[in-house]
Amino acid sequence: MDLFAEIEKKSKLVDEGIETYLPVTHPEELYKATRYLPDAGGKRLRPSVLMFAAEAVGGDSKSVIPAAVAVELVHNFTLIHDDIMDSDDIRRGMPALHVKWGDAGAILAGDTLYSRAFEILSGMDVDKERLIKCIQLLSRTCTEICEGQWLDIEFEDRDDVTEDEYLEMITKKTSVLYGAAAKMGGLLGGASEEVTSALYDFGLLIGVSFQIHDDVLDLITPEDVLGKVRGSDLMEGKKTLIAIHALNNGVKLDIFGKGNATKEQIDKAVSVLEESGSLPYARNLAESYLKEGKDRLNVLEDSEAKQALLEITDYMLSRKY
Amino acid sequence: MDLFAEIEKKSKLVDEGIETYLPVTHPEELYKATRYLPDAGGKRLRPSVLMFAAEAVGGDSKSVIPAAVAVELVHNFTLIHDDIMDSDDIRRGMPALHVKWGDAGAILAGDTLYSRAFEILSGMDVDKERLIKCIQLLSRTCTEICEGQWLDIEFEDRDDVTEDEYLEMITKKTSVLYGAAAKMGGLLGGASEEVTSALYDFGLLIGVSFQIHDDVLDLITPEDVLGKVRGSDLMEGKKTLIAIHALNNGVKLDIFGKGNATKEQIDKAVSVLEESGSLPYARNLAESYLKEGKDRLNVLEDSEAKQALLEITDYMLSRKY
Repeated sequence: MDLFAEIEKKSKLVDEGIETYLPVTHPEELYKATRYLPDAGGKRLRPSVLMFAAEAVGGDSKSVIPAAVAVELVHNFTLIHDDIMDSDDIRRGMPALHVKWGDAGAILAGDTLYSRAFEILSGMDVDKERLIKCIQLLSRTCTEICEGQWLDIEFEDRDDVTEDEYLEMITKKTSVLYGAAAKMGGLLGGASEEVTSALYDFGLLIGVSFQIHDDVLDLITPEDVLGKVRGSDLMEGKKTLIAIHALNNGVKLDIFGKGNATKEQIDKAVSVLEESGSLPYARNLAESYLKEGKDRLNVLEDSEAKQALLEITDYMLSRKY
Repeated sequence: MDLFAEIEKKSKLVDEGIETYLPVTHPEELYKATRYLPDAGGKRLRPSVLMFAAEAVGGDSKSVIPAAVAVELVHNFTLIHDDIMDSDDIRRGMPALHVKWGDAGAILAGDTLYSRAFEILSGMDVDKERLIKCIQLLSRTCTEICEGQWLDIEFEDRDDVTEDEYLEMITKKTSVLYGAAAKMGGLLGGASEEVTSALYDFGLLIGVSFQIHDDVLDLITPEDVLGKVRGSDLMEGKKTLIAIHALNNGVKLDIFGKGNATKEQIDKAVSVLEESGSLPYARNLAESYLKEGKDRLNVLEDSEAKQALLEITDYMLSRKY
């Protein structure tokens, strides 16, 4: 199986789904704003996971496209609102939505994506019992994403954030949506409770792994590849796993929370974090969450789709941006 | 029937429902923020309409409480985000949420109310077919509310807003939620398609009526009763029906769009709008929408609940704040 070709196929279906389920209609400028980020690409990982999960339990990936689109729109909604809250002005190498449409426009575009996601999902013509479970799951997930973002902001003003608190935060802020995507695929594909539950755990665990890896990438990826300022987490004083490990081990980080830094200062901080073991620690933890997540897929019979779910996770952790 | 006692009873059920379905849990400060506005009161009109509608079609109002709470939370969510966008710092006589928790806190508290509303609604143990119709309706309604708010903001920079455009804007921004509330009550109460459709129209039409009346009240209600700055719509240059009528009739309004004004200047503007016929025109239109809305209830058999729906509308249009 060619994973990239498979993801490419899924991405194309998601793109078409976005075109179908989020048309640019009246008021045109609002809908242009809602399409700005989804149309700018992104890896479409969450909807791909949803579709592979549906196939892996014997379902049909095309029939779950609306759910895949809903999950992708929720993801985009969170990026838009987070960028306002975090004053991040660059996203996917472009001006953030709030830079182009102002805070009010970005709040509204995000809110619209939010409600459209539930419109699209609840409009699916599938078994009602399973559909309601999907809606319950996606709405619960959105609440948890808000809780995670709240904790993320709260941690900025605290010096005593523990590793457990950090893990709770990233689980809620980013991993639950992977869990929801995988489980929704399973639910709509007709899987049993045991299998959908394992799929949820798979998504959750690989989501944690991805996020830890993302925090690593924020430090080591060149800016033009990353599409945003390198080392921004560090300069903003974000309590990432790396920062928490460093702080707990008395590692001195001059630029931590200083708002800005030169390229040289960032390079130096990265060297310090490599030597202190903080960066290697994060890499290892990401690996171990990945392994645990993949193990959860043992409940599935072998299939191309199961293989894709396994490989997608390896790809995510081998990527450099 | 004592309408106020009936609304009081419904409000109490909604309050208890909020306590049950939106508990202050971890992260505590986030949930305190989500409860700030719902706990500050409000008239609970939308959930009351939902519960009366359920009773009026022979349903049980207690069993629809989660739906009533969901509608009230959606309403509160829109107030929170609107206040950020409109830079309105006072709400229900208190500092707006974004004044107390900052923009980031208010965005997140709003987002949380949004998803909690769908969690609460989708968690109801009722006929699945009808529940999905409710979710479709509420999510569609939320999208329309966003469209309405977008138009409202867009109108600020335009001098050629027509009465039809204004009516589209208020229909989406505020009336659809009344329509959704009434129809959800009907759906969950077991009503036919004909009746739920009439209930939707009833809610929509009285919503338009209420909004026009609100625009009137913004001009004539003392600040301490209104709970926000009097004449703010006028000073902000909002294209309300009154302002559009005045502009179309060549009425000169010195303070229009000027950002601020003295009490005397506001009083003068109100006199001018009375004499130009703009305020009377708005009052009459509000009355006529009200009548049309009430007529839609002819499909219902007589009942105390139907009587309450009729009287609640009269009360809304006779209120002075």
